[in-house]
Amino acid sequence: MVGSEVILLDFWPSMFGMRVRIALAEKGIEYDYKEQDLPDKSTLLLEMNPVHKKIPVLIHKGKPINESCIIVQYIDETWKDKSPLMPSDPYTRAQARFWADYVDKKVYDALKKSGTLKGEQQEKAKKEFIEILKVLEGQIGEKPYFMGESFGYADIALVTFYCWFYTFETLGNYSIEKECPKLIAWAKRCMQRESVSKTLPDSKKIYEFFMEMRSKLGHDHIQKVEDFSPFRGRGVFLKHGRELVSGSSGRWKFHAALGIKMSSMVLRFGLGVLFLDETCLPNLGFI
Amino acid sequence: MVGSEVILLDFWPSMFGMRVRIALAEKGIEYDYKEQDLPDKSTLLLEMNPVHKKIPVLIHKGKPINESCIIVQYIDETWKDKSPLMPSDPYTRAQARFWADYVDKKVYDALKKSGTLKGEQQEKAKKEFIEILKVLEGQIGEKPYFMGESFGYADIALVTFYCWFYTFETLGNYSIEKECPKLIAWAKRCMQRESVSKTLPDSKKIYEFFMEMRSKLGHDHIQKVEDFSPFRGRGVFLKHGRELVSGSSGRWKFHAALGIKMSSMVLRFGLGVLFLDETCLPNLGFI
Repeated sequence: MVGSEVILLDFWPSMFGMRVRIALAEKGIEYDYKEQDLPDKSTLLLEMNPVHKKIPVLIHKGKPINESCIIVQYIDETWKDKSPLMPSDPYTRAQARFWADYVDKKVYDALKKSGTLKGEQQEKAKKEFIEILKVLEGQIGEKPYFMGESFGYADIALVTFYCWFYTFETLGNYSIEKECPKLIAWAKRCMQRESVSKTLPDSKKIYEFFMEMRSKLGHDHIQKVEDFSPFRGRGVFLKHGRELVSGSSGRWKFHAALGIKMSSMVLRFGLGVLFLDETCLPNLGFI
Repeated sequence: MVGSEVILLDFWPSMFGMRVRIALAEKGIEYDYKEQDLPDKSTLLLEMNPVHKKIPVLIHKGKPINESCIIVQYIDETWKDKSPLMPSDPYTRAQARFWADYVDKKVYDALKKSGTLKGEQQEKAKKEFIEILKVLEGQIGEKPYFMGESFGYADIALVTFYCWFYTFETLGNYSIEKECPKLIAWAKRCMQRESVSKTLPDSKKIYEFFMEMRSKLGHDHIQKVEDFSPFRGRGVFLKHGRELVSGSSGRWKFHAALGIKMSSMVLRFGLGVLFLDETCLPNLGFI
């Protein structure tokens, strides 16, 4: 590979990509940023991450490193001279890894559900998300950062979600700050660092991106299946991946919650599906 | 805490606990092994892992470390003098972390499904599991171990699943060795190390444990719901978590595949559920 020694394949609203950008900024590393078109993945991305085919990918001297938390550790271990991101003591390092892992396992899905599910399911999702954040808030406690005085790995893992809060708070009609004021105070403290404030996009820009994407997905990714198996030749169904979102077949009009994954058996027995006019689709909580 | 400097809270058939035991054996660390009763968690376990409440937990000088891969890294970083488990070069270390992470994200669920789903779903699950193993086999290639000449972190992450293969191969009626001979050759090579062979329980003992547990779970964990909402007061349903596994209500006897998650909407409309005599439950693929 000819060109820059450090290349980042990324997508601007990705909270995972932002982690890498913050780590690079903390270390003061110059790099070539290559924005990726995710619906139409580049040959470079597919070559550099053949297993997951995902951004972010850091390419250092022609060799790829994948998975955001692994990349952040690689950056810290390769550029050791400036701004250590990992605690120096093995026990505190294990704690930092534990909290980054907790964020990875819990935050993304719960945040998304808090804004995209509907009704009772959404209330439950919001409650669950706040519980997760309270665990994280409890860990930060009265300290400036996750592991104490120094901004580092666990802070990077979580703080990139902060610019996404507004989107799901708006969609879910709730306030994270009201429930977790200390967590938001921590996020604002992180935002005082240039590495963070220059990396995180404006929350409203994220919201606009999300609404536009959702609208596009509603239109583009929903597939019309005219002769769906349970009522072959007798109905019109719309599916989104394996999820049936709309169905009408003569006198059969089913209503069911979003989120029912259709198994072949469900299809065979023609179980209930959400009945909607096609024009409603952009308003649904897909993605 | 008084007593041993190193304590391991573990459960003998856990592939995650085995990772820690192999790492401790590689380093030659003496420790106090405390077998945990998972249905009735000890106060010590709940205190030492209040977030996930899971084994394994390593307690070193009274302080807990959680999550198997994080524990293995902690062991390697704390007892540095003997048998390094992580590659010394940051790039190779990132690769080792990538493959351990891949194992964590992919192997457990896919292995379990390959033996516990039924019919067409099982065939699909077996195919998916073999595809995952082929990716891992491709990474090992002609090398003795994942990262080359030295046994280490990525090998530890995967090899503990080896003693579970027999159980799911037997239940799923297939052979992993036939599909992935080089992967099995790698596993047998790992088994030549005392740290591995002395840690991994006999495959048949695992199988017996699994069958016994499944039988117990079938009886103990399935909840009878007599006045289930779709047919309030008119039927008898059995549910396992949110999954309805059996239903009968007058002339309504539904049949559907396992694996349909019931949403409140599905329940309201009384959609199909697997109809079974209660005595059949131990033979189903729960857990």
